[in-house]
Formats: sequence, structure tokens, C-alpha cells
Amino acid sequence: MSHGNTGAASDMRVAQSDIDLFRHLENNLYTAVVSDALDELGFWDRAMADHLRPLVPSVRFAGWARTISCMDVHHVDGDPYAIEIEAVDSILPGEVVVVSTGGSRRNAPWGELLSTAAMARGARGAIIDGLVRDVTRIQRLGFPVFAAGIKPVDSKGRGLVMAYNVPVECGAVLVSPRDLIFADFDGVLAIPAAAIEPAIRLATEKALRENQSRDELRKGAYLRDVYKKYGVL
Amino acid sequence: MSHGNTGAASDMRVAQSDIDLFRHLENNLYTAVVSDALDELGFWDRAMADHLRPLVPSVRFAGWARTISCMDVHHVDGDPYAIEIEAVDSILPGEVVVVSTGGSRRNAPWGELLSTAAMARGARGAIIDGLVRDVTRIQRLGFPVFAAGIKPVDSKGRGLVMAYNVPVECGAVLVSPRDLIFADFDGVLAIPAAAIEPAIRLATEKALRENQSRDELRKGAYLRDVYKKYGVL
Amino acid sequence: MSHGNTGAASDMRVAQSDIDLFRHLENNLYTAVVSDALDELGFWDRAMADHLRPLVPSVRFAGWARTISCMDVHHVDGDPYAIEIEAVDSILPGEVVVVSTGGSRRNAPWGELLSTAAMARGARGAIIDGLVRDVTRIQRLGFPVFAAGIKPVDSKGRGLVMAYNVPVECGAVLVSPRDLIFADFDGVLAIPAAAIEPAIRLATEKALRENQSRDELRKGAYLRDVYKKYGVL
Amino acid sequence: MSHGNTGAASDMRVAQSDIDLFRHLENNLYTAVVSDALDELGFWDRAMADHLRPLVPSVRFAGWARTISCMDVHHVDGDPYAIEIEAVDSILPGEVVVVSTGGSRRNAPWGELLSTAAMARGARGAIIDGLVRDVTRIQRLGFPVFAAGIKPVDSKGRGLVMAYNVPVECGAVLVSPRDLIFADFDGVLAIPAAAIEPAIRLATEKALRENQSRDELRKGAYLRDVYKKYGVL
Amino acid sequence: MSHGNTGAASDMRVAQSDIDLFRHLENNLYTAVVSDALDELGFWDRAMADHLRPLVPSVRFAGWARTISCMDVHHVDGDPYAIEIEAVDSILPGEVVVVSTGGSRRNAPWGELLSTAAMARGARGAIIDGLVRDVTRIQRLGFPVFAAGIKPVDSKGRGLVMAYNVPVECGAVLVSPRDLIFADFDGVLAIPAAAIEPAIRLATEKALRENQSRDELRKGAYLRDVYKKYGVL
Amino acid sequence: MSHGNTGAASDMRVAQSDIDLFRHLENNLYTAVVSDALDELGFWDRAMADHLRPLVPSVRFAGWARTISCMDVHHVDGDPYAIEIEAVDSILPGEVVVVSTGGSRRNAPWGELLSTAAMARGARGAIIDGLVRDVTRIQRLGFPVFAAGIKPVDSKGRGLVMAYNVPVECGAVLVSPRDLIFADFDGVLAIPAAAIEPAIRLATEKALRENQSRDELRKGAYLRDVYKKYGVL
Repeated sequence: MSHGNTGAASDMRVAQSDIDLFRHLENNLYTAVVSDALDELGFWDRAMADHLRPLVPSVRFAGWARTISCMDVHHVDGDPYAIEIEAVDSILPGEVVVVSTGGSRRNAPWGELLSTAAMARGARGAIIDGLVRDVTRIQRLGFPVFAAGIKPVDSKGRGLVMAYNVPVECGAVLVSPRDLIFADFDGVLAIPAAAIEPAIRLATEKALRENQSRDELRKGAYLRDVYKKYGVL
Repeated sequence: MSHGNTGAASDMRVAQSDIDLFRHLENNLYTAVVSDALDELGFWDRAMADHLRPLVPSVRFAGWARTISCMDVHHVDGDPYAIEIEAVDSILPGEVVVVSTGGSRRNAPWGELLSTAAMARGARGAIIDGLVRDVTRIQRLGFPVFAAGIKPVDSKGRGLVMAYNVPVECGAVLVSPRDLIFADFDGVLAIPAAAIEPAIRLATEKALRENQSRDELRKGAYLRDVYKKYGVL
Repeated sequence: MSHGNTGAASDMRVAQSDIDLFRHLENNLYTAVVSDALDELGFWDRAMADHLRPLVPSVRFAGWARTISCMDVHHVDGDPYAIEIEAVDSILPGEVVVVSTGGSRRNAPWGELLSTAAMARGARGAIIDGLVRDVTRIQRLGFPVFAAGIKPVDSKGRGLVMAYNVPVECGAVLVSPRDLIFADFDGVLAIPAAAIEPAIRLATEKALRENQSRDELRKGAYLRDVYKKYGVL
Repeated sequence: MSHGNTGAASDMRVAQSDIDLFRHLENNLYTAVVSDALDELGFWDRAMADHLRPLVPSVRFAGWARTISCMDVHHVDGDPYAIEIEAVDSILPGEVVVVSTGGSRRNAPWGELLSTAAMARGARGAIIDGLVRDVTRIQRLGFPVFAAGIKPVDSKGRGLVMAYNVPVECGAVLVSPRDLIFADFDGVLAIPAAAIEPAIRLATEKALRENQSRDELRKGAYLRDVYKKYGVL
Repeated sequence: MSHGNTGAASDMRVAQSDIDLFRHLENNLYTAVVSDALDELGFWDRAMADHLRPLVPSVRFAGWARTISCMDVHHVDGDPYAIEIEAVDSILPGEVVVVSTGGSRRNAPWGELLSTAAMARGARGAIIDGLVRDVTRIQRLGFPVFAAGIKPVDSKGRGLVMAYNVPVECGAVLVSPRDLIFADFDGVLAIPAAAIEPAIRLATEKALRENQSRDELRKGAYLRDVYKKYGVL
Repeated sequence: MSHGNTGAASDMRVAQSDIDLFRHLENNLYTAVVSDALDELGFWDRAMADHLRPLVPSVRFAGWARTISCMDVHHVDGDPYAIEIEAVDSILPGEVVVVSTGGSRRNAPWGELLSTAAMARGARGAIIDGLVRDVTRIQRLGFPVFAAGIKPVDSKGRGLVMAYNVPVECGAVLVSPRDLIFADFDGVLAIPAAAIEPAIRLATEKALRENQSRDELRKGAYLRDVYKKYGVL
């Protein structure tokens, strides 16, 4: 099953307005210009830290945050996957999985099987503030994942999912369930509900002015003249 | 001389049982499933830290650890390469060079010439817990190398090889000479002699169950059902 | 406008002796061998730290350092781009932009528009000891950039250019205006004016001996014999 | 001149309402209980990071933030102390000096002479997010200082004061000019103007309940009973 | 209530053999010599990392590990103290509280009230791999606490106790419930049950030889002679 | 044997000119003013990093650097103390032991017995860029030690002395044998031989002007006036 097919399947179960929103972001905008719009609206801390990088360069997706929160553990006790299974099985189409590990370098709580399961539920991508494994297979699946690093270890005996659908810290950003996640090669934004509409409007306008600036700069214009004319840099 | 040719040449000098072992790992297994097997056997700390990354993505090799231990120095005195030359010239076919630098960010103790020399001796790869240089040329050689970073500096006046064939710490794992090293894009394992046989047996079994889980998940099954049926995640 | 065209255009405005110097470095030498020459001359600390990595693998350029110095800020006041615009508009053909941010992980002071403007002025590349954005677009421009990381945020309200053409620390190296910058995939060197001529002479000689060592090692020679014969490793 | 004398002198020039405020904090409250009050009011990030420690254990002071912002430099140019002198000479009685260095480990921008000058102007203390020197003499002065570390180096050629009375980041808290600083051995709070009145009211109430909890716990009561009764922990 | 009184009270409820064990450690031994004994027995990783420091210099205590495990959270939900209260109220006389926070620098899960409650239950000390507050009051209580830092913030909304009496990582040591904790100004050891008897026997012997070495060294003997004679350093 | 007695004993074996030099530094100067003098002479990097702190606050000593270089090891082999014993037994009166560990957090290569032995040889203090143990006993000895941290572990099986009387990096400063070490509560300087005479001369002059500045500032003068008059800050 290719990522495209999954996308198509899940799109059918997502509200048309959500599909339109995701497509506008993915096709017409980019994280840098939306970040500038968030700045203008006073949301200065919505871009995740640079230690989160995509597993493939050609990445661009939007969706609603489905948060999952892990902690490090040092023993195996009871069912180590119980809440994790519940969290992943209840993912809704149009969501982006956002996993917080408290910065663990021991635990790789995400891999190929969870990617496959999340795709089957209609997830549009995953952001793991922690380590992942099965990277070559995830790349082949076409499921877009950001991670803090790669290590071939299981979560059993190393980390436990303690909660989901709660506020989490991911990439040094406080992400609430249903924040709008928007990611491309420059990084990941978590856009609060209240900021979505104005941020997209401002970003769409600014993208236009940036195109004009770029054209003039490529022709050899000086920054001082271009900035005076378009007010963007 | 291509990596394949070197491999063929060195294979002739490696025991057939070693060749069979390396090929089973490289062709049928992957570090994630072997790591799970090591967990089951109580070896929780055999996967190297995520700061060690391969210089090329298509990496997969196994071999016996040939350890080398460096320390940082701040002057040039006597023959700065004496023990290093001895260590590399005595590499045996089927070995993987494992270099510890004590986490140095000043010294790049590995480069193209040592890669060439190690290949000529029959080495199957190298893991450098430190910096390397000549990376484009090493990529062209086809010699698989993991490293902690890249910097164009020589070891002379920055680091000295102090010992080889001793226990070293590499990627936060204590590696003993002749541990079985197994590496792919997910990272590097150092498998102690006592664990090799059972780890490979358990991993081979688990890989089969993972294939079945993966098939069902791709068809849209829920994690709870798949985990109940195959017991793997 | 392709990078090649820009190069050609700017070459016309660069002294022929500079063009010859840059081409000799880019075509015949590499950072590793020049670093060894700097070591021999007693310049041990001219290779930048390994956290600076190029945005594309096929990178190789030389030019005169044009330094820019930023500091983190936490408010917007007056014209946030004033000195930055002045610094970039005054870049001379044949220069390499060297931006210091004091190690900021908040501010991305470099992106596509500044890359475009710098190319139009004849810059040959940029080294940003800090974060950058618009990475996919910079890759398409063909403008070679080294950076410490990627984040989609603007500098406005996060960082201010405070000075240019002053000594800065970049990649843990003290870079003076008009140092000779030489970069390839192994990293970045800042060569002080006094060291340029002897470093290039020594490096050119050593590159020859390394070619001979490499040939013998590929044929299977032992390090001890090759090192005895050519004295390089 | 003892700290007490200076205090008395400066008190005469501080508004009586300010003196009353500072004395209530210093005599009746402590940072932990005021931090809890800030939490209740939704100000979760007003306690500075734990790397800032006082130079003497018996520390407790309040005052209005006088912010100063430094950046690292690597050369001496013009008058290296110009803005620093202006910033310190204009300190008002009742202020606490809050110096941000961007996390520098090279520059010690505060020492005995600046402490002496700040005391003479009526400053009540200083918080340096960076290094300090002359520590034994500052201890003898009785001027209360928090710092990130100690090193015997001057700022000249290492750091420059670039601005004062601007928002700065100190101990990972964004401090605005005239925030109310309150410090004791547990650390430093920066209380925004809007939160001062309710925070002090809530803290005063909570301190009372904590006294009751403490008394019962000392007599051997169980936490569950005490928490049920007083609702504080 | 002084620490001594509490000690006396709690001793009455502790088995006489435990009291004898604790007193032998506290009166006759020190962590350095017990650490050497653990080395000889093959327990190389039982000394906690140096970031854990005591709140007062005159510290020396032993007891059974009562482990508590926290995770960082970012919201307040339900009863934020439920498991914490249960964990502390069930402390047994002769125990040492060992709190793991996963390395949090946001959360201060220990303070005066918990110290008071733990003392009332008979705890002999606490090791917090995280931040603490109310430090001046804890010092006055005489309850010995090791911590990773000091910050005046509450755990509510920052961290939750998730479990107790489970294996935890504290100071980079894996501590199991009922490990024997032994702490003095040099740091903290967690001695596994199986090692207690032989470690104490070896340490007691070695302490004697160290006394003899020390006496001779003070008289001016050379290390080579003293080491030859007593075999300790 | 008190520190004073040892000092007296060792003084008898130290050249009178050395004693005069050490006493002038210890009695009339302080590290901050000598650091300023080194800056004026162009020696900007001779103050050790702030992670090195003294074990007691009342510390002030000078002497010739006796360097010792350790590396981390992970096994016990042969005589683990051989070079260490040789290095310490050959310390000369008037020397300061300077131990580099490459930044190890595992190994505590210095403790009470080595302090005792070093005192007996006439050492004036020790700077350990690494961990130490037996701290309470070292404090009682009166032997002044700077260290990067405290942990109760032995060096056997963790670290080996590999060389002495070679250049080492300690506190991020390159220290050569027989550099002049000068330490007080503000930190540690390593003064190269060529700089000793002019640095002490400049420092002695500057200390005088600082006394005058201090006096005026205490009387309430403004920085701008004092700086104009004495040119020091």
C-alpha cells in the first residue's frame, strides 16, 4: 500500500474542510512563511527545535495533533504496550501523531509496525521527540516521520506510554491535542486553534510579497531597495 | 578495488562458518530484531548510541570486533602513528574496526588511507566513536563506516592510539575484542560471544512473526488484534 | 539564475589572481590536506567544529571571509534588519559570508532571500554558525551553505546583526575579515593571510605523496611500509 | 560600608510603597510560595533556571528589574565599557540588576567594582546569567549576587553591553524592565507587573496554610490527612 | 524535632540488625572504600553521578532504598499528588527515599513538607535526581538530602509521581527497591542485596590498610614503597 | 601535619626567588588582576574554565605546573598505578599538580592518599580536570585542590595515567610543564614562562589603580568619572 493510496483512503473519511485546509498548506504555503505569520500574531514559540529532522528530505504534511506521552522505565511489568495500542488504534483520519519521550536517548518508541498501523488509521505523519527504528522500512512505506535520532531498540523495558490526548512537550513546543501540525523540510509548527485562520491568511499574503522580492533579488537588486519596496526579508 | 572484490578476497581467508554467520545476519536479519532478541536474553545495553551514524545510507555488515583505543594529546612526540600502524596492519579478515576516542571532538583518527589499509587486510567495516575525514573518498571506496562526526583534521598532535585488542567504550557500549558487530541503517550492535547463538535463533523466529504482523497491519487490522495474535510489536 | 552563471559573472569582477587561487584549491586540493599543512605551520585551530554541515553533499568552494556578527534579542525595536541589509548589500565578489550567532538555537538568520542577495553580489558561499531556513529553496539555488541546524523561524524579534567586518567566532574558530575560507564535504577551514602561501605549497606537495600512498595501499601494501616510504598517513 | 547601611541610604530615595512591598516579600514570604501563587495565576515560567546560584547562602532581596544585555565579542574596538558605564550609572534606587550574556562561558561581565558602583546607586542585588569575578570581595561587600559561574576574566575583548532597559532572557526567563525580582536561596522569580498584587495576596494566604500543614506533619500526621485538611503540599 | 531525635525514634522501629548495619557503615566506613570493595566484587556502576550533591556538607547516612518515579507533565488533571502521597505515607523506618525524575530541570518534586513527612515515617535521608526547594528549611530540619539542583517551583503541573517501589535510574545508577543506600560527602552508593555482606567485609579490611598507608605517607614515605607494602592507593 | 608546616618544609627546598615570586602573588595579587595583565600582553586564554572549583573557599596558591595526563580505560591490566606512582613520587617542591582526564565523569583520579603523598613531596596544590574523592579528608589536610566534581570511585579499571611532564589540556587551557599556576577563589591561571615577568609587573600596577577606583566608587562616585580618572574597571 503506497502512501498516496492511504492518503486517498483517509481523505474520504476526513471532513472536506479539513482536506481543503491541509491541501492549501501543503500546496501553497511553507513552514517559514507560516512561522512569520505566527510571529506577527504574537505566537513566538510554535516552531519545534532543530533536533527534530525528517527521515526523508521530500516531506510536507499537515494534520491535527494526536499527542502521546511516554516516560522512561527500567523494568518490564504487566502489559508494556497496553496504552500504546489503545492510543494508536484510536487515531482518527487526518491526525498527526506527536510523541513526547521527555528527551530519552534510550527508548525508540516508534518504528515500522506503528507507522503501518497509524497509516491504516489515516494518520498523515508522525513527530517523535525521541528515537525511532526500522528507518529504511519506514522510508519505503512513504509515511513521513520526524525524529530526534535513530537506534534499533524496542520500547519494552525502556519506555511506557502513560497518556494520550494530553498536552505534551515536543521539540520544546507545548503541543495540545488538535493543534494544527504543519511540517516541511525546514521543520515543524504546532499552530494553536485560535491562530489557524489569521495565520493562514497572513502567510498567504506574505508568500506573494516574498515571490516579488525574490524575483527582484535574482535580477540583482539590492536588499535595501527590495526591503523598502516589499517590506519582507 | 571495489568493496565487493575485497569482500570476496577476504572471504577466502575467513572460516566458512564465519561467512555463513555474517551472511545470515546481513541477508535475513536486521539490527532491530536482533536487539529485541538480546533484550529477551537480558543483554539490554548492546545497541550503540544514536550519535554514531553511517556515512552512506545503504549499510549492512557483520564481523568480529577489532578494538582500538585513542586518547587526546596536545603535542607531537616520537612516532605519532606507531601503535596505530601496528593495530591496523594486524587486522584479520572478517573483523570490524571499533575505535574509541573518549568522545573527542578535536581528533579525526580515521580517514581514507586507513580505510584503504583496513579493506586490504579484509576488514568488513569500521565504527569510529569520534570524528572522521576524507568522507567523499571513503564513500567512493565502498568501505562502510559509522562515525560521530566529520572534521578535516589529522590525528597527529591531537590523538594517539594507546592500545588495541582491549575492551573499549564505543557508542556508550562496552565492546570486547571479538564481540560480534552487526550494523545497519538503524545502528550498531555489539553481541557478546555467549549471546550469539541464542540471539540469532530468537531473532530469526521473531522476524517471521513480525512479517505476519506487518501483513495484517497493512491490510488495516488493529494493533490490539495483531498483538494478541502474534505477540510482537 | 544558476550558481554557475553567478560564478562566471562574479569571476569577472574578481582579480585574476584570486580566481586562480580559488580554482587551485577547489580543483587540486581538499580541506584535509590543507589542514595538515596548517598543522605543520603551527596553525592547529583553523578547522571549524563538526556541528557545521553543508546543506548539500557536493560542496567545494573558496573565498575571502566577510564576517557578520549577530546577537539574540527578545523584542522588536526600530529597524530589525538595518545593519543586516547594509552587511549583505556591501558583500564583494569573491567573498564567503561567515555569520556568527553566539550559538543561538532560537534564531535562523539566513535563508533563501539572503542567499539570493549574496549570490547577486558575487558571494561564493556562506557559513552560518547558527540555524537556517528555506533549505529546499537554497539547495535549488545552488548556493553552497554550511549551517548548525534548520528551523523555519525569522530573525526579527530573535536576533540582530550588530556588526560586520569584525573578528567573529564561527565553528569554534576565530575568523578575521579576509581570512581565506576553504570548504568541502569534510568541513571548513579559515586560513589566516600569513599562512595562505606556505599552506598551499605544503598541501600541494603532500597531496602528491598521499596519491602514491593510496595507490600502494590499494594494492595491498602494509601501512608500516607505506608510511616508511612516503611519510604520510 | 555594610549592605545594611546602603540599604538604609537607598531606602530614603525609594517610594515608601516600594519599601513596604520589598519588606513584605523579604520578611513574610519566600520564593517557593510566591512561585505557587504565580502558577495559580497561570504564570508558569517565572522561576529562573537552577544554574543561577547565589554567592552567599543567606540571600533574600526584592527590587525592580534593571535589565542589561551583553554579547560576546572577540576584539577590542572603541570604548569597550561605554554603554556598560551608562547602564550602571543610571541605576535607580530599589532596582535589581539583571544581566543577560546569551549564556557566555568566556566573559565575566560583573565584579567587585560594578557591585560597588551599583550599591552606591541604590541597587538591591544583581542576577548575572553569566560568569562573575572578584567573588571574595563581593561577598565582603554584602552585595547579593546570583551568577552562573566564576572566572577571573574581564569583559574587555570578550563581551560588550549592547543595550539596557530592554527585555532580556535571564535564567531561561524573559525579564522585562521593571518586573519585580524576588530572590532567596531557592532561586529567583521575575514577577510581571500585572501579577504582583494577586501573587502576593495568594502567597500570603498559602504561607499560612503551609505553616499549619508543617506543624501537623512534624507531629507525625500522614500526608493524606494533612493534604485533605489544608489542600497544600 | 531534631534529626537526632527522629533517628532515635525511628531506630526503635527498625530491626536491630539493620541498625547495626547502618551504624557500622556510618561510623566505621566511607563511600570511597565501599566503592572499592564493590569494584573488587565486579559491581563497577554503583556510585551515583557527581551531579547529585548534598544540601549540607556534614552528611553520612545509610538505609534501604524506597524508590519513587516521576515524569514531566504539562497540565493539571485529577489529583496531582495522589500517588506521591501514597508513596510517602507508606515509607518504612530505615528507608532512604530515592526519587527519579528522568533528569527534569523543570520540576522540583521534593521540599520541606515532604522532608517533614518522610522524617515522621522514619526515613533516614533522600536522594533526588532532580530539583528541590525549601532548601534553607530542609537544612534546618536536619534531614539529609542529595539533589541535582535547586529551584523554587512546585511539582503540580510540572511532574507526576507515576510509580513507587519499582526499579529507577538515579544518578545514572539503576536502583532497585531495598538496595542498600550509603551516602557521605563523596557521593551516594546503591549496594545490591547480594553484595552487601562481602562488600562490607572487604571494605572494613581495606579501610585498615588505608590507615596504615596514610600514616606512612604523612611521614614522607614514597608511594612506590607504601603501595608495595600495603597494596592500596 | 598541617599545611603550614608542609609549606615551611618545602620552602626550604625551593629556590628563594621562587618563594618570593609565590609570596608576591599570594599576598599582593589576585587572579582577576593578573588575568587582566595577561590580556594586555595578548594571552587571552590562560584562565581555566569555571567548572573547576576549589574544595574550600579560602584558597590561594602559586607554583610550577607538574602535568599528569590520564585516559579512561575499561579493564584492569598489569599495574594500574605504575606511571601514576612514578609521576607523584617525582613531584618537586614548589610544584602544582595539574591532572587532565579528557573530561571523564567516570574516573576520580585524585584523593586523600595522593594529596598526602604530593604534600610530602612539597606540592603546593592540585588542579584536577576531573573528579576527586575523599573530599572531607582532603579538606582536613589543608591541601588546596580544584576539581570538576566529586565521586567516590577509584581510578583502577576506570582511568590510567599515561604520561607526565607533557602539555595537557586542563580547564580548556593548554598547560605546559613549568607554567606558573596561580589560583584563588575566582579560578586558576596558567601563566606561560615568557609572560611571568611582564604580567606580574602590569598586575602590580593595575592593582594600585583598582584600589583607588574602589575607594572613590565606595564614596559614591559615578563609574564614568572614576573610569575617566583611573582607566580601570
